[in-house]
Amino acid sequence: MNKLTGLILCSGSSPSTTNIHYLSGFTAPDAFLFLKTASGGLLCVSPMEKGRACSQSTPGTQVYTPQDLGLSGKNAWDFSEQIPALMKKAGVRQLKVPADFPTGLFQDLEKKGISVSVEKNPVCPERNVKTAAEISKLRKSQRAAVAAMKAGIELIGSSRIAKNGFLYKGKEKLTSETVRQRIHKTLIDYDCAGVETIVAGGDQGTDPHERGHGPLSAGQSIIIDIFPRSEKTGYWGDITRTVCRGPANPELKKLYNAVKAAQLSALKMVKPGICGDEIHRNCCDIFEQRGFQTLEKEGRHVGFIHGTGHGVGLDIHERPRIGKSGEILEAGHVITIEPGLYYPGLGGVRIEDTVVVTEDGFRFLAACPKKFELL
Amino acid sequence: MNKLTGLILCSGSSPSTTNIHYLSGFTAPDAFLFLKTASGGLLCVSPMEKGRACSQSTPGTQVYTPQDLGLSGKNAWDFSEQIPALMKKAGVRQLKVPADFPTGLFQDLEKKGISVSVEKNPVCPERNVKTAAEISKLRKSQRAAVAAMKAGIELIGSSRIAKNGFLYKGKEKLTSETVRQRIHKTLIDYDCAGVETIVAGGDQGTDPHERGHGPLSAGQSIIIDIFPRSEKTGYWGDITRTVCRGPANPELKKLYNAVKAAQLSALKMVKPGICGDEIHRNCCDIFEQRGFQTLEKEGRHVGFIHGTGHGVGLDIHERPRIGKSGEILEAGHVITIEPGLYYPGLGGVRIEDTVVVTEDGFRFLAACPKKFELL
Repeated sequence: MNKLTGLILCSGSSPSTTNIHYLSGFTAPDAFLFLKTASGGLLCVSPMEKGRACSQSTPGTQVYTPQDLGLSGKNAWDFSEQIPALMKKAGVRQLKVPADFPTGLFQDLEKKGISVSVEKNPVCPERNVKTAAEISKLRKSQRAAVAAMKAGIELIGSSRIAKNGFLYKGKEKLTSETVRQRIHKTLIDYDCAGVETIVAGGDQGTDPHERGHGPLSAGQSIIIDIFPRSEKTGYWGDITRTVCRGPANPELKKLYNAVKAAQLSALKMVKPGICGDEIHRNCCDIFEQRGFQTLEKEGRHVGFIHGTGHGVGLDIHERPRIGKSGEILEAGHVITIEPGLYYPGLGGVRIEDTVVVTEDGFRFLAACPKKFELL
Repeated sequence: MNKLTGLILCSGSSPSTTNIHYLSGFTAPDAFLFLKTASGGLLCVSPMEKGRACSQSTPGTQVYTPQDLGLSGKNAWDFSEQIPALMKKAGVRQLKVPADFPTGLFQDLEKKGISVSVEKNPVCPERNVKTAAEISKLRKSQRAAVAAMKAGIELIGSSRIAKNGFLYKGKEKLTSETVRQRIHKTLIDYDCAGVETIVAGGDQGTDPHERGHGPLSAGQSIIIDIFPRSEKTGYWGDITRTVCRGPANPELKKLYNAVKAAQLSALKMVKPGICGDEIHRNCCDIFEQRGFQTLEKEGRHVGFIHGTGHGVGLDIHERPRIGKSGEILEAGHVITIEPGLYYPGLGGVRIEDTVVVTEDGFRFLAACPKKFELL
């Protein structure tokens, strides 16, 4: 980027919100602007955010309110007024915007005669490789996830199996909701927030984005997928375990063992230079070899119906992707490895760890046992 | 909108994500498309979301995967391929997009020769007036907020004032973090998630978006602002109280009483037909009359430095706004009334309730006492 060109980011869409957080150190619930220039960055925030923006933004970031930029009245809150004012402050003559920049605002800028175009390259490719400080933040979130996982599994493992097959805690049926509450409360003790945590038993678990609800039963696979975000740092953790209270039938055990084998095999492949699609294909092969096919059955996709993993950072899903269209892994990438199999009538199994790619392989961000049957 | 025109929404930016939720009944963590037509709506979601999309979407919504639309390979995941395929399915020839639609995708559609333009009018103006079913959902979230507020205030009120002025719980100093944890755990019992909850004492409270951290002291104003989102429904609640453990000095009491008077006066004005800016100006007048000025002091904005309120629904901040540029209130609007005053050195006070506008005034979504000094 030359001195006369700036990249303007508007928070409120993905990934711009987290890109601004990454580049400026600052984030806020309401939309605001960040202008990235060759020499640094400029924030334009509401007066009530200025104090926090000044104290939290990275050194070298200039913080302005619309009023500081000479705007007043209704114009002051119009982004298409704030942007030219920011450009003037920065001595910038033309603008790039990321692909997720709002079209309405883009057209308003064009109408004002501003030279503006879409940047085709990723705005923050440096986000993929994590610094030591970032890995430390991610590890804290992952430790929270593991602690919550252990609490959830402990609750299921200590439940009573009634004659009707349902799990009980005292006189109450144990439900997905109860387990989720236990998980979320544990996350809070670690300064993390859990949202959309999955505790899905039996056929509910075969729909990978169904969160799960109602009573849990013995002998069914229960998928627990926890992805906490640190309230302090904004970084995420991500972990999935699948358990079964009481003995599982042989078919379900085979399903679990196939996923576990695929996950271990995938983890062993993780190292710099390998492409994500190789790791994904390897999981597919293991499932095929064990007779677990991926296909459409009665209008539903069954088998291995998602990718093998994704990057984790300030976004829960970020680059690199480990799937059909993979990317080359580099040391410092933080990724999940999470193969799964889903067959309505039998159950769903997913096992997921978040790891950092090291010079010669990988390291778990936090260790967590894998045990299917809770007998 | 005529039969040949469709409005295409892409989730991942605000307010499109919640507009899709409102219009289709469906939402998902990863980006997906919704095409609104004169006769209904069409979702395009990943195969792993299809089951949930079919069961959760509102009647009349058609659910497709890229494969259902005849796409395959890498193209299948390209929104600029999915959109023409959706248009074909719906018999739509031209497109409108909302202002927050991603510019990169907009330009890709133009390059494909698709007739596409930005819709200047709000996409979901009907969201402003809540249905009875929505009000019931909002009330549940607000009740969660009130329960959490009572739990947080109870914790502060039952703390011990040490000789050094700090608040203690047992042998530990009572901190913003501890109170926030208590609040968040209470919200979980109500199936709600609290994020960015504010528990800010003394000067921290004078920066309205500072969440608060560290030990709390006696004699300082402590702002508690809780805005939970229901994990089940997606609807928000919003409440703020300000308390002081032990006696407050006369200046701080005056500050509190001014905000309380402004809030009560503002609430009394709430009814259909009034404009939000009238309510806001009335708060400003009350503060001026009581000698609390809004101005810039040593580079910081002090006094009444934000609007009086905002709509609450599937977004925590939505229309109508109650501020300098207000909107006419209608029966069924659900809004906050939350004046505040902030003076570094003295403290911050904000009092907020969420109310529904009724035919002849307003009704609290949930009742919660207002008491400043916890003696």
